[in-house]
Amino acid sequence: MKIYFAASIRGGRDDVKIYKELIDFLNQDNQVLTEHIGNGNLSVTSQSQSDDKYIRDRDINWMKEADLVVAETSNPSLGVGYELAYAEKLHKPVIILHNSTKSQLSAMINGTDYFKDIFEYETVSEAIEILKRSIKL
Amino acid sequence: MKIYFAASIRGGRDDVKIYKELIDFLNQDNQVLTEHIGNGNLSVTSQSQSDDKYIRDRDINWMKEADLVVAETSNPSLGVGYELAYAEKLHKPVIILHNSTKSQLSAMINGTDYFKDIFEYETVSEAIEILKRSIKL
Repeated sequence: MKIYFAASIRGGRDDVKIYKELIDFLNQDNQVLTEHIGNGNLSVTSQSQSDDKYIRDRDINWMKEADLVVAETSNPSLGVGYELAYAEKLHKPVIILHNSTKSQLSAMINGTDYFKDIFEYETVSEAIEILKRSIKL
Repeated sequence: MKIYFAASIRGGRDDVKIYKELIDFLNQDNQVLTEHIGNGNLSVTSQSQSDDKYIRDRDINWMKEADLVVAETSNPSLGVGYELAYAEKLHKPVIILHNSTKSQLSAMINGTDYFKDIFEYETVSEAIEILKRSIKL
């Protein structure tokens, strides 16, 4: 499967090591299109509006190509919120992983009927177990 | 005009006083449907999934009713990102206000052609001047 992994970039990179572990797991038997999100050296600052347009259009094209969207939502992020609404619009299957020790998930996301597969976790190994069960690798 | 004002709730309430000043200004000659967002005592914790569904459905109905969406994006927020994508889907006019001293706007938002009215500000009075010019009260 091609997987669009969504997580915070400019919203904050505190959890980048968790993103990397989840992406590495998913990449074992799938192709994560957005694996740069797990790169701790990823530049998060914008150079120009046209760079942002390039990033946005590339990411939307990846999402159109994806069989599944996996979103890590513990760190609040405008981009992830936008991507979740876009995944809903495109009728892509969505798995949401939320670390319940870090924050409470947005009501706009938690209250949307389309998002049925919302999972709370506390440790990365728990999150990986959830992914194993959910996508039946 | 009926205005849907979008800003962070569970993503963090550091800027609630700014939200209140912007809402109070907009309410002078318009009706802000989401004025609870400027309430410093607003409960931000979820009681249940059905409460979140109530909030989400109420907010989406307000957005459908609105003539304009004004989003304050300085504090990263899944809900605001979701609402911006939804406003794009509904073809609602959108004004985005971003405090450039606090964070850098998400590439997914800044790079979306639909969002033409993105304004950087530093002080609340600057933000109010931007609103005056943009919506020609």
